[in-house]
Amino acid sequence: MNITRINPGKRMSDVCIHNRTAYWVEIPDDLSLDMAGQTQNLLALAEQTLKQLGLDKTALISTTIYVSDLSKLDDMNQAWEDWLEPGQAPVRACVKAELVDPEMLVEMAFIAAVPMAL
Amino acid sequence: MNITRINPGKRMSDVCIHNRTAYWVEIPDDLSLDMAGQTQNLLALAEQTLKQLGLDKTALISTTIYVSDLSKLDDMNQAWEDWLEPGQAPVRACVKAELVDPEMLVEMAFIAAVPMAL
Amino acid sequence: MNITRINPGKRMSDVCIHNRTAYWVEIPDDLSLDMAGQTQNLLALAEQTLKQLGLDKTALISTTIYVSDLSKLDDMNQAWEDWLEPGQAPVRACVKAELVDPEMLVEMAFIAAVPMAL
Repeated sequence: MNITRINPGKRMSDVCIHNRTAYWVEIPDDLSLDMAGQTQNLLALAEQTLKQLGLDKTALISTTIYVSDLSKLDDMNQAWEDWLEPGQAPVRACVKAELVDPEMLVEMAFIAAVPMAL
Repeated sequence: MNITRINPGKRMSDVCIHNRTAYWVEIPDDLSLDMAGQTQNLLALAEQTLKQLGLDKTALISTTIYVSDLSKLDDMNQAWEDWLEPGQAPVRACVKAELVDPEMLVEMAFIAAVPMAL
Repeated sequence: MNITRINPGKRMSDVCIHNRTAYWVEIPDDLSLDMAGQTQNLLALAEQTLKQLGLDKTALISTTIYVSDLSKLDDMNQAWEDWLEPGQAPVRACVKAELVDPEMLVEMAFIAAVPMAL
């Protein structure tokens, strides 16, 4: 099927690449942090994922952001804007949703562009 | 990376195009309207976006619809069906989600097909 | 536009295929079932959709799962893991969202890879 799967597990793969497009979902790994911290944590993991694919932030096409508490939206937005590469923002949907762990404040689904060579 | 970004801002781009596929998210710009009005408003903006890409409603592949109040779902659905090109509907997910502005009743994430030439 | 639409209706198409990628949204058709049952029901329908496209579960790239009741998450996860092809899991986002019918417990949006020939 020409799908490249990174770390396929029994519930999900870390990344799937098909037709020059990479799909993945990132969650924070330290849920003791506040919204700013969890967002920075998640985005650092996203940057590692991009690096693993030979990519960087300029490859981002689309991000769907789920936040569990809209009163902390400003903190997420600040961390998000601080992280993005200027002039290279993806499109973005952002909604409130309860997440699978009550301690988790943010989850993001990413789509990124992959060069032909991959 | 072969990504075309329209109006890249510090938080998001208006549209990203990659590999013959356009991604964008639309929100109403007049939040004083009711659900029918906000949906018509949003869809008129989506039509402008499509036109800007040299496309029309027949290019729609997928729409994810977030509504903040399910009691007004019928009004959204009516405006949605009135707007679509007959026989050319995209696939559609529709769920309830609180949106970033409490006055905002609807948000939609679109994926559309772009001709090879772009 | 090179979009193949399956069963285009006035509100949505069952599937849209573009550029070797299939998009569709699945809901259970028997809402009297519990979370395990609705998930199994939905996934059986997804398998029929895949078969209709000449595909199977190994074609899955991405799934966005909306569950209306997080207290029943384990039942959804078990049915999900039981259904997946080992080593072929898609990427997965999973959030809580109220769905358009209060009896509906789960909705899933899928992206799958389609061979060049389609």
